[in-house]
Amino acid sequence: MAVSGAAWEPVQRSRTHELVMSQIESQLLSGRLKPGDTLPSERELASLLGVSRSSLRESLRVLEALGIIEIRLGGGPDSGAVVRNEPGFGFVRLLQLELAMGHFSDDDVLGTRIALEEWSGANAATLATSDDHAELTAILDRMDDPLISTFEFNQLDTAFHVRIAETAGNALTAHLMGSLRLAIRQQMIDAYARLADWRATAVTVRSEHRAILAAIVDQQPDLSRKLIREHIRSFYIRTEAGQQATE
Amino acid sequence: MAVSGAAWEPVQRSRTHELVMSQIESQLLSGRLKPGDTLPSERELASLLGVSRSSLRESLRVLEALGIIEIRLGGGPDSGAVVRNEPGFGFVRLLQLELAMGHFSDDDVLGTRIALEEWSGANAATLATSDDHAELTAILDRMDDPLISTFEFNQLDTAFHVRIAETAGNALTAHLMGSLRLAIRQQMIDAYARLADWRATAVTVRSEHRAILAAIVDQQPDLSRKLIREHIRSFYIRTEAGQQATE
Repeated sequence: MAVSGAAWEPVQRSRTHELVMSQIESQLLSGRLKPGDTLPSERELASLLGVSRSSLRESLRVLEALGIIEIRLGGGPDSGAVVRNEPGFGFVRLLQLELAMGHFSDDDVLGTRIALEEWSGANAATLATSDDHAELTAILDRMDDPLISTFEFNQLDTAFHVRIAETAGNALTAHLMGSLRLAIRQQMIDAYARLADWRATAVTVRSEHRAILAAIVDQQPDLSRKLIREHIRSFYIRTEAGQQATE
Repeated sequence: MAVSGAAWEPVQRSRTHELVMSQIESQLLSGRLKPGDTLPSERELASLLGVSRSSLRESLRVLEALGIIEIRLGGGPDSGAVVRNEPGFGFVRLLQLELAMGHFSDDDVLGTRIALEEWSGANAATLATSDDHAELTAILDRMDDPLISTFEFNQLDTAFHVRIAETAGNALTAHLMGSLRLAIRQQMIDAYARLADWRATAVTVRSEHRAILAAIVDQQPDLSRKLIREHIRSFYIRTEAGQQATE
């Protein structure tokens, strides 16, 4: 649904793109602009806001990079800037750049993963339904395939961890956790590749996953928390992906 | 220090701004571009990359919004696009927009804060030095001022929580935690304003902070973790900023 022109006001000061951004933010906050909505056309929106099309385009690029809107190319009725229904890759992109700049270390990522995942593990043990148990089991069963590739194994590994976060019922924790794993995905695949015998490591990973799942099924939050912490830390130690774990 | 032209290659495909972004990312990853460096001038960089100045400007705006570069206006020797030395407000901005869009709820923020902060509290109890103790004490002493305003009280409250995360020695956890608090700052100030007698709440907050600090000084990670969890949750319940806490 396109949003009517009445809600937009011309912006007044310089640093135009910041003001355009803040108008879009307040439209979102007020609920006049909602996920799934299509923004007015570039020409129309520039005119409604009283800014140049190049300033508007800068703002739209920023919103796109942050994963707030999706720009559908083409020109048909579905093309244009659409407000995303789900969080995008903004945090992954941001984190990858911050890691590239050395603002955060591998150990920082390890500690943050442990913080988010041990909390998720404890809550999953309290909240998991039999559907959650079945889905988590199905992921682990697929990881048991003896002919599995490292790529597929890593994907299912991520799916297991993210599914636990979802079981804990917190969309933000699950999103941050999934984004962290995406941001370090190449690093994890490289770490596996460095292993002399990745299938031996896979055996350990499988048995640790089964123990975590058992703690969740048995509704033991403290055990689940402890096993997840040790599992993440021991993977880092085994693969030397990080140097030393905190806590 | 400006970066030499040799490191840049003209980009080849469409979606130009994405390619410009990925070149800047690879310059950061390879270490040819470092925090504190100044990018070549807009005209020079556009020519080195073989893109239009408007495409380049879009990419720079995105990097600025993500908090990767800072654009210094003026025209003197210090003006231009500088790679930031520290993480910026990218995550705060992103989170505010996601909250505005309803991708995450107040309860999601509460759970994520507890995850990050209870981990930080446990590690702070293990790692805190006497300097950390002194600084945390100094913050709490300032919060004891009977004439303190709600605004200042909230600022010091944030300082105390972020200082614990820093004591835990994890820059990413500290950054995420600080960003989360910034994103919900107005909401927290409004929650205080809704209280019939905010000074009564302040008394409780002060005594909970002192108990957390004592657990850190006494090197009791489990107690510190538990007190922080209860402290964050009880503030939400008291102020009705969230409805129900997970875990």
